[in-house]
Amino acid sequence: MSVPVPLVIGLDVGGSSVKYVAAALGSAPGDAPQVLRRGTLATPGRRPVAGLVAAVAEACGSDEVHALAVSIPGLIDSGTGRVIRVANLPELDGVALQEELASALSLPVRVINDGHAAAIAEARWGSGQGRADVFTLALGTGIAGAHVLDGQVRVGANGSAGELGHVVVEPGGARCSCGQLGCLETIVGAPALQAAWRDAGGSGSPVELLRAFGDGDPRAVAVVERAASALADAILTLLALVDPGCVVIGGGLASAPHRLVLRAAQLVAERASFHQVPPILPAALGRWAGAVGSAATALECLGEDALGATR
Amino acid sequence: MSVPVPLVIGLDVGGSSVKYVAAALGSAPGDAPQVLRRGTLATPGRRPVAGLVAAVAEACGSDEVHALAVSIPGLIDSGTGRVIRVANLPELDGVALQEELASALSLPVRVINDGHAAAIAEARWGSGQGRADVFTLALGTGIAGAHVLDGQVRVGANGSAGELGHVVVEPGGARCSCGQLGCLETIVGAPALQAAWRDAGGSGSPVELLRAFGDGDPRAVAVVERAASALADAILTLLALVDPGCVVIGGGLASAPHRLVLRAAQLVAERASFHQVPPILPAALGRWAGAVGSAATALECLGEDALGATR
Repeated sequence: MSVPVPLVIGLDVGGSSVKYVAAALGSAPGDAPQVLRRGTLATPGRRPVAGLVAAVAEACGSDEVHALAVSIPGLIDSGTGRVIRVANLPELDGVALQEELASALSLPVRVINDGHAAAIAEARWGSGQGRADVFTLALGTGIAGAHVLDGQVRVGANGSAGELGHVVVEPGGARCSCGQLGCLETIVGAPALQAAWRDAGGSGSPVELLRAFGDGDPRAVAVVERAASALADAILTLLALVDPGCVVIGGGLASAPHRLVLRAAQLVAERASFHQVPPILPAALGRWAGAVGSAATALECLGEDALGATR
Repeated sequence: MSVPVPLVIGLDVGGSSVKYVAAALGSAPGDAPQVLRRGTLATPGRRPVAGLVAAVAEACGSDEVHALAVSIPGLIDSGTGRVIRVANLPELDGVALQEELASALSLPVRVINDGHAAAIAEARWGSGQGRADVFTLALGTGIAGAHVLDGQVRVGANGSAGELGHVVVEPGGARCSCGQLGCLETIVGAPALQAAWRDAGGSGSPVELLRAFGDGDPRAVAVVERAASALADAILTLLALVDPGCVVIGGGLASAPHRLVLRAAQLVAERASFHQVPPILPAALGRWAGAVGSAATALECLGEDALGATR
């Protein structure tokens, strides 16, 4: 079988693993990238650029690759692709990642925020498909948000829009990693949920908490109700300020059977006053959304670089 | 002196008065409309369409007018210019105002939200001038917000974005007119400020409260500090979610000497954690911003209608 051309690689770099996809253009304009191969590697430690170059080699096998995009859980300078700040990968802090990878691989490279990569994919080809105005949330250790307008993330004037996790829902509440008190993350972030679940006498991860909630365990019901209530309040603030056409919620804590998302959506509907409540939907693409969004970005950067070359 | 052509009328309809401007195109592209005449009339009561037609006649005098835009303190269907809901003018509720005025006057007409009209003017030619991404606030009886991107208001998927006044800053707090508890308006809206000032033993309007605050009256300091604190908290939520390039605060309660705005801006800077704090500025155009924004809209609709005619 011949490999479609151009072939691109999308990498989604997390704290412990790197997901990769090798992909080609979808069959029609606007279609999702056609994923030819995908897999997972350990996140490289001390020499991250060399490690990511090796990941690209594994992803493309013997095929020629034409562009690369890498998504990183941190703040990226969108002009240069330099990593400004990253939470769980201190080796990448301050690295001119886009430039270094482009130079090592002789390829067009883009470096983007991982929440933005997943948001692009989810808004275009997941639960937001067919809508021009989608706000995506990823519930995990942190809470990442992104407002996707016409398929592109509105990153904000300083690159930091969409931080629903740092909307204060409980003034004077617990101290957040960001320094504020009572951010949504202090109640709905995975570590906060896990601590509340233990305090209530439960054992295991937040996923087990959600399972116990589904089984009607009253200790789990109390913890999840508080989380769903805080999430609903934050979403009402989002509706008041941003008024998106659709809210899509993904990430580990929103995965099937979507109990937290469904309960939060119910509470938003009950509490809405003047708000226009849009559809609030669980994400559809699962854990590959970030890598697919990266591949889409790589395909787009091919187009941009071609335009640049003919100027 | 010959009157510039095309001449347009901008009306800004409030609960008690209608401000009008007669205006022509600015001298260079991007300039503010050139205001030739302006004035104030009483808001028409029982027959609002006839009353607004009379206001146009007064505004244009003997000159020929080419387009009209009317700003209304309420929710407008942006497609048809029908008034969906208006707070202080029940006679206009549900009126197909754009269609009725266009038919009565044989002119191109646009009907827009008054906060949006003022926001357009303030973002383009007031304190937001030269910036592509401006969030404007008007502090008065209510609190109107608008996100202006490239000179146009992002109205949201359902026409209700920008409602900073209905961001909850005090969960379980006072009941808001919208039905929620603890909205920003329940602390910083003019009626709330007036009530708090009276409860503290003060007398007179919120403007006198701000004067007493400037004089160091400890009763006024307590009331204004609470309001500035709530406003700062709401602005921090705005920065987290929207990340605008600039925040411009106008309306009666923000007028010179800007004490509430300056204090709130100070508190935002003190409390910011991960937030990128943009310039927070008092509005520059004062009480004519709405009428000027309406005139700008009328000039634009002339262009649109001309384009439509040549298609």
